[in-house]
Amino acid sequence: MPLLGPGEALVRLLQAGICATDLELVRGYLPFRGTLGHEFVGVVVEAADAPAMVGLRVVGQINLPCGDCFQCRCGRPNHCDRRQVLGIRGRDGAFADYLSLPMVNLHPVPDSIPDEAAVFTEPLAAALAILQQVAIHPDDRVLVVGAGRLGQLIARVLRLTGCDLSVVVRHQRQRELLAMANVASIAEDAVAERRSELVVEATGSPSGLALAKRAVRPRGTIVLKSTYKGCIEVDISALVVDEIRLVGSRCGPLPAALRLLERGLVDPLPLIEAHFPLQQGVEALRRAAEPGRLKVLLHP
Amino acid sequence: MPLLGPGEALVRLLQAGICATDLELVRGYLPFRGTLGHEFVGVVVEAADAPAMVGLRVVGQINLPCGDCFQCRCGRPNHCDRRQVLGIRGRDGAFADYLSLPMVNLHPVPDSIPDEAAVFTEPLAAALAILQQVAIHPDDRVLVVGAGRLGQLIARVLRLTGCDLSVVVRHQRQRELLAMANVASIAEDAVAERRSELVVEATGSPSGLALAKRAVRPRGTIVLKSTYKGCIEVDISALVVDEIRLVGSRCGPLPAALRLLERGLVDPLPLIEAHFPLQQGVEALRRAAEPGRLKVLLHP
Repeated sequence: MPLLGPGEALVRLLQAGICATDLELVRGYLPFRGTLGHEFVGVVVEAADAPAMVGLRVVGQINLPCGDCFQCRCGRPNHCDRRQVLGIRGRDGAFADYLSLPMVNLHPVPDSIPDEAAVFTEPLAAALAILQQVAIHPDDRVLVVGAGRLGQLIARVLRLTGCDLSVVVRHQRQRELLAMANVASIAEDAVAERRSELVVEATGSPSGLALAKRAVRPRGTIVLKSTYKGCIEVDISALVVDEIRLVGSRCGPLPAALRLLERGLVDPLPLIEAHFPLQQGVEALRRAAEPGRLKVLLHP
Repeated sequence: MPLLGPGEALVRLLQAGICATDLELVRGYLPFRGTLGHEFVGVVVEAADAPAMVGLRVVGQINLPCGDCFQCRCGRPNHCDRRQVLGIRGRDGAFADYLSLPMVNLHPVPDSIPDEAAVFTEPLAAALAILQQVAIHPDDRVLVVGAGRLGQLIARVLRLTGCDLSVVVRHQRQRELLAMANVASIAEDAVAERRSELVVEATGSPSGLALAKRAVRPRGTIVLKSTYKGCIEVDISALVVDEIRLVGSRCGPLPAALRLLERGLVDPLPLIEAHFPLQQGVEALRRAAEPGRLKVLLHP
């Protein structure tokens, strides 16, 4: 049972989601030791400073800033130099019966959103971060490289802009899921070179950047969504000559993600691959790590 | 003597400048064979379709687009898939008594700008490209890594924005030249980590990016100006986690560069290191390649 710090709430887990970052953490991407898990929906069971919160279903912002460092004072709490990150850095995560977070990190979930959809709020917000960082116009040609867990959500968000969107797929199931959202699929060898205004690299592996680089037009933008252990070789001069913009992108706005779910503009339910109880967490992680697998959920 | 194609002008050289790209080309950065040189000022001596141009002093846009490919039709002639580039790709350059360029590439030089300043128009435009690509606000903390030929010009352009500007220097002469323009110098080991909104990497070598990455703040921007042969190792995940933006930057607007020179807002003359006649071109390149050397000019 987590001990609560000042201003923190105790949350009983309803559903948690397994993300590529969890799998990378298992592989040693960061030196984190503790309980994994940063995608969740739960119920507040204790909140000393805000008793009205008790009983509410909530999702949570995963970054816990110090509030006092240079980055915090400059208004970039998600980039706090001393931050904890739920299930990623210095803070036990959501793959547990109970977790704790500061109350300011919590967002109530509207009643119309079922648990199995609300658990996608955090990765959906990560997809929305792209729209916070780059302008996408309705006539832009946009390519998403990678149609896995995050790529599918990114496609569902970017389609809302009206842009000319294609997603590079490797598995038939990925293609079917995109078709359900009226998003075009494309095979890797059919990608047109130097044509896309925007390419989102969401493969979760080092191979995605080379394809993204081939696909993007000169003066175009590549949004980087993959985190993995280690470095890759990059031809910097090619980025200079073609004046490419690379944009790293991480966490996004939870309230906006909740609005998309509440309005029915994004339906994440078809992306659920399997349900496991927490006691079978290791098996659940193993399943999520199989090629082409989509969202695996954990519940108490 | 160059043969003129349709719409082309013959230009007699007055001054040409040696750039880091010329030195990289000598080292094999690109498979170019031919006459080097893309920074010049000259006099039009033949222009069949525009006799009024004859006798005018001109500088020249170095990209020769095909006008017909996808990039050209999308309004990106500088990124034409089949472009020639003066002294860099498929086109003899300016280190010669005469060169040729399409007349549409030429820009007359106002009388008040001496030859030795006008020869800086092309690299000054390359510095201005940064301001075309990213917004710099008057209260932004900006760092230029590299105080060589291009770094000095970049510093002289960025200071015009009023931003809080420092330049990483390695040589005392670089520091003195920056002081003449009232720009602050800083040693590499004094650079504050994770503080600068914008970092411009203009060292011309692979080492610059690591320092730029250390200096830039989360969600900040690194503008890449260096071209060199080969790839470097990049920690992509670090760019994602800190949500850094990398922006490749190449050629810029010659008319704006001429306006800065005409208004006296940028004085490039202190950056001239030496003058050589074309016949001593090899010696001139050797001089320009010595560490800390600034602009070496060639004349007929």
